[in-house]
Amino acid sequence: MIKSHFLHGFLNPKSIAIYGANNKGNSLAGLQLMNLIKSGYDGTVYPIHPRLESVMGFKAYKNIRNVPEIPDLVVIVLPAKIVPQIFKECGIRGIKRIILISGGFRELIGDRRNTLTEQINNIAKEYGIRFIGPNCLGVYNNWYGPVDHNKSFNIFIWENLERSKFSIASQSGTLSCHIWYDPENLDLGLGRSLSVGNQANIDIVDCLEYYKDDKYTEIIGLYVEEIKRGKKFLELAKEITQKKPIIAIYVGGSKAGNRALQSHTGAIAGNSRIYEGVFKEVGIIKTDYVQEFLDIALIFSRGIIPEGNRLGIITNSGGPGAMIANNAEKHNLVVPEFSENLQNELESVSPPTASYKNPVDCTFDMDLPYFYIKLPEILMKSGEIDAIIQYGVVGFQEVLDEYLKYDQIAKNAEFQHQPDETIDKLARKLLQPTMANCQKYSIPILYINPMNFNSPWSKRLRKNGAILFKLWDRPVNALAKVCEYVEYQNKLK
Amino acid sequence: MIKSHFLHGFLNPKSIAIYGANNKGNSLAGLQLMNLIKSGYDGTVYPIHPRLESVMGFKAYKNIRNVPEIPDLVVIVLPAKIVPQIFKECGIRGIKRIILISGGFRELIGDRRNTLTEQINNIAKEYGIRFIGPNCLGVYNNWYGPVDHNKSFNIFIWENLERSKFSIASQSGTLSCHIWYDPENLDLGLGRSLSVGNQANIDIVDCLEYYKDDKYTEIIGLYVEEIKRGKKFLELAKEITQKKPIIAIYVGGSKAGNRALQSHTGAIAGNSRIYEGVFKEVGIIKTDYVQEFLDIALIFSRGIIPEGNRLGIITNSGGPGAMIANNAEKHNLVVPEFSENLQNELESVSPPTASYKNPVDCTFDMDLPYFYIKLPEILMKSGEIDAIIQYGVVGFQEVLDEYLKYDQIAKNAEFQHQPDETIDKLARKLLQPTMANCQKYSIPILYINPMNFNSPWSKRLRKNGAILFKLWDRPVNALAKVCEYVEYQNKLK
Repeated sequence: MIKSHFLHGFLNPKSIAIYGANNKGNSLAGLQLMNLIKSGYDGTVYPIHPRLESVMGFKAYKNIRNVPEIPDLVVIVLPAKIVPQIFKECGIRGIKRIILISGGFRELIGDRRNTLTEQINNIAKEYGIRFIGPNCLGVYNNWYGPVDHNKSFNIFIWENLERSKFSIASQSGTLSCHIWYDPENLDLGLGRSLSVGNQANIDIVDCLEYYKDDKYTEIIGLYVEEIKRGKKFLELAKEITQKKPIIAIYVGGSKAGNRALQSHTGAIAGNSRIYEGVFKEVGIIKTDYVQEFLDIALIFSRGIIPEGNRLGIITNSGGPGAMIANNAEKHNLVVPEFSENLQNELESVSPPTASYKNPVDCTFDMDLPYFYIKLPEILMKSGEIDAIIQYGVVGFQEVLDEYLKYDQIAKNAEFQHQPDETIDKLARKLLQPTMANCQKYSIPILYINPMNFNSPWSKRLRKNGAILFKLWDRPVNALAKVCEYVEYQNKLK
Repeated sequence: MIKSHFLHGFLNPKSIAIYGANNKGNSLAGLQLMNLIKSGYDGTVYPIHPRLESVMGFKAYKNIRNVPEIPDLVVIVLPAKIVPQIFKECGIRGIKRIILISGGFRELIGDRRNTLTEQINNIAKEYGIRFIGPNCLGVYNNWYGPVDHNKSFNIFIWENLERSKFSIASQSGTLSCHIWYDPENLDLGLGRSLSVGNQANIDIVDCLEYYKDDKYTEIIGLYVEEIKRGKKFLELAKEITQKKPIIAIYVGGSKAGNRALQSHTGAIAGNSRIYEGVFKEVGIIKTDYVQEFLDIALIFSRGIIPEGNRLGIITNSGGPGAMIANNAEKHNLVVPEFSENLQNELESVSPPTASYKNPVDCTFDMDLPYFYIKLPEILMKSGEIDAIIQYGVVGFQEVLDEYLKYDQIAKNAEFQHQPDETIDKLARKLLQPTMANCQKYSIPILYINPMNFNSPWSKRLRKNGAILFKLWDRPVNALAKVCEYVEYQNKLK
C-alpha cells in the first residue's frame, strides 16, 4: 500500500511548519510559502520566525516549541550552520519529517571535511526523523487529498499545472520544478515531484520504491548525479520498467561535468559509459537533454504505446518528410516502403501530385478530412506501421483572417472569417475519429504544425488530444527512445 | 557587382505577372499574391486569369500577350502539363525570368520518363529564359528597393519578419519559408530566401554565387537534397566560408530518406558520409536538425564570434550547470577549470554558497548587477574563455505580480508591483554594459531563462540584444558547431 510508504506523509501533510520565510519576495522560503498559498493548500501552516508576528497572512511562531500541535512536516530554509540546532529542536518536539532546503553542506568546494551532514544525520537517527535534502527545493503533489477535489500540495512550482501521471525524482531542483515555468507551451502535466538534493537521508531509491506502487504514477522521470544504493536501484528499476517507463537524465562522465557535480550535490559521478550500459540493461530510457526528457514523457502520457518501431510518415511538404525519414533511420526507427497493395489504396484516394511509398507526401492539398482522417486510418489499418508522424501546415483560418485586414484583398476575396464555434466543430470532427483510431490500433500519431503553439489551429489540435510539436526534429528523436523501450519490453515477453 | 548577377532581377522585379491566382484562400497562387500585398510590394502586378476581371484587387489579364508591358518576372502556379505552352507564350512575349511553382515534373514516382522538364528546358534555352523551380515556393527579399525604405518583395511568407543578413537557398519550400511561421519565438530575422525546388535551370550553386558578393548576406543557410555541379559547389563554398559561414542541412544517405528525395525533388542522393567529409573539408557547418540550423544562424547573426572553443558557464542552478558542462564536453567544447587567480577573484565577489571552478554556480542570489554585469565581466577579462553560457531564473517581477493577486499574500507582502518603465530601465542598465563587453572582448553570451519566451523578463532580455534560449540543450549544441567553424577558419590563418 502506497499510503504506508514513509514518503506518502511528505506529500500529504495536514500541517506544516516553515523556517526562514518572511514577507519579502526575494527570499526563497517566502516564495515557497507563496506557492503553497497559491496552489490552494488547505492544511495548517505555521511559519517560524524570531521576530515577525505574521508571515504572508499566517500567525508566526518564535519557536517550534510554541507551535500548538506537532506539524506533519517541517520545511527549513536557514543558513547551514544553524541547521543542526534546529534539527535538535524539531526532534525534541517530536517532528518526524523534515524537508531541508538549505545548501552549504557537503557540496561546498574545499570543505569536504564539513561535518554538518554527519551532525544532522546523527540527530535524525537519534530522534527517528526522516528528511529530504539538504540542498533541494522541496516537493510537489498534484494528487493531494481526495482525488476529485483537484487540490495540490506544492511548495515549489509557481504555475498551476495540469494533473498527470508523470512523476519526477531529481537531484536538481531546477529539473524538478523550474522546467515547468512555461506550462502554456507544455501539454505534459505533472503528478508528483520530489527534489532530493544531496540525498543525505532520503534518496532516489526511496522515491522509486514509492512510485513503484503509486497508482497515480505511470511514468517516472529521474535526474541523477549519483546513485547511493546501486544494487537496490537496479533491482527496483528492472522491476518497475516492466510496467512503467523510467526516463533518466544521468549527468557525469565528463571532466567538467564531474567538477560541476561535486560543487552541486557533492556527488562523485561514475563513468557515463558504465551507467549507459547498466541503464540499458534494466530498461531505463536515458537522455542527455531536458527537452527530450519532457518529449518522451509526453508521448507516454497519452497512453498509446507503439508495438514496434515501424514509422509511417504523412506530410504535405517534401522537405520535412525527407528529414523525418532520414533522421528516423539514423535513430534506428524503420521507415518501411509500403506494400504494393497499400500504395495502390493510397493512390486511389490521393491527389495526382502525391507520392505514397512512405513518406506519404500529399503535397499542397486542402482536403482536410482526407489529411486528418482518411490517410492515417489507411496506414493504421494496413498493419505495416506502429507509429505515425504527420507534418502539415493546415488550418489556414488564422492566415486568412490576417489577410482580411487588408482592404485590397478583403474587397475581392471569396473567403471569409469563420466563427470560432465553426472551427471548433471542424477540429473536433477532424481529430476525434483519428484519436479513437489511435486508441483502437494502439498507434500514436505525433503531429507537427510549424505555427505558434498557441495559434488558433495548434490550440485546437492540442485541445482534441493531439500530441503536437512545432518542428520535426524532436518528435523523431523522442519516438525513437520510446520505441527502444518498447523493444526492451518485447524482449522480456 | 551583385546587381549584375542574373538572380538579382528575380529578387527585385519592378513588375510581376502571376498565373494561377484567384480570389480564394485555398489556392496556393492566391496565398502568394496575398503575401505580396501584405508585405507592401509597390511594383506593378498583373494576374493572368482566363475568366476573372480582377484578382485580389488587381486588374486581371486573359493572356500574357495582353499585359501592357513585359513584366520583369513571371510566377506560374498551374498544372504541369500546360506549363510548356505557358513557357512558350512567355518566351514569345519576351519574358526573361520565371518562377515555376508547379510540381508534377520529374519528382513523380514511376514517371521518370516524364519529358516535361526537358520540354521547358528547351523552350527556356530557345528564348533565353532563366527559371527557378519547378516544384518550389518562390522567393523572399527583405532588402527590396532602397535600403532605408524597409520594403520587401515576398511571395511566400505570411509573417512580417525582421530584416537580417541571414539568407537561405533551399530545395525545400518549407525550409525556405514555413519555418518562419512563428516569428514571435524567433530572434533570427531573414534577408533573402530562394526556394529552388528541382533546380531544372537555376541551382544552389547559382544562389551561392549570388550570396557570395551580396553585402546584405553575411550568413548563408542551405537545404540540399542534391548538388548539381559538385566541383563548382565545393570551390565556391571553400571561398565563401573564409568570410561567411554556410550552414547546411543535407538530407540523404538513409534508404527511406533517399526514397523521400526521389518523390520530393527527384534527387538521387549520395552517401551522407561522403557529403559529411567533403562539407567539413570546405568549412560548411552541417546539421540534421532544422532547429539547430536556426540556432546556429542566430548566434552568428549577432556578429560576435568566439575566437576559440573554451566555454565559461555561469548559473544559479547546479543541475543545468552540470548538464551544460557535460554536454559541452561531449560536443568537443572545452570547459576549463579556472586558474587559481580567477577563482580567487570570483570568490571575493560571490555569495558564500557559490562555487567558481567553472561552472560558476552562484546559487539562489538576487544580486542582479553581480549576476548580469560583474560575473560575465570577470570571465571575459580573464582571457580564460571564448564564450559564455549563462543560465538563470531571475527577473521575478512577473512572479511577484502574480502573487500580489492573492489577498492573503498581498496584505502581508513587503514587495510591490514595479511600473514597466522601472523594469525597462533596470533591464537596460543590467544588459547594456554586458552587451558592450561582448563586443569589446569578442565573447558571445548565450542566455537561458526557462520562462516563456514572451514573458516580461525574457522579452526585455531579447529587446536588449541578448541571445536567449528557454532550455539549456540547444545553446550547447549550436555553440559547439559555431566553434567548429571558428576552428576551421583558424586553421586557414
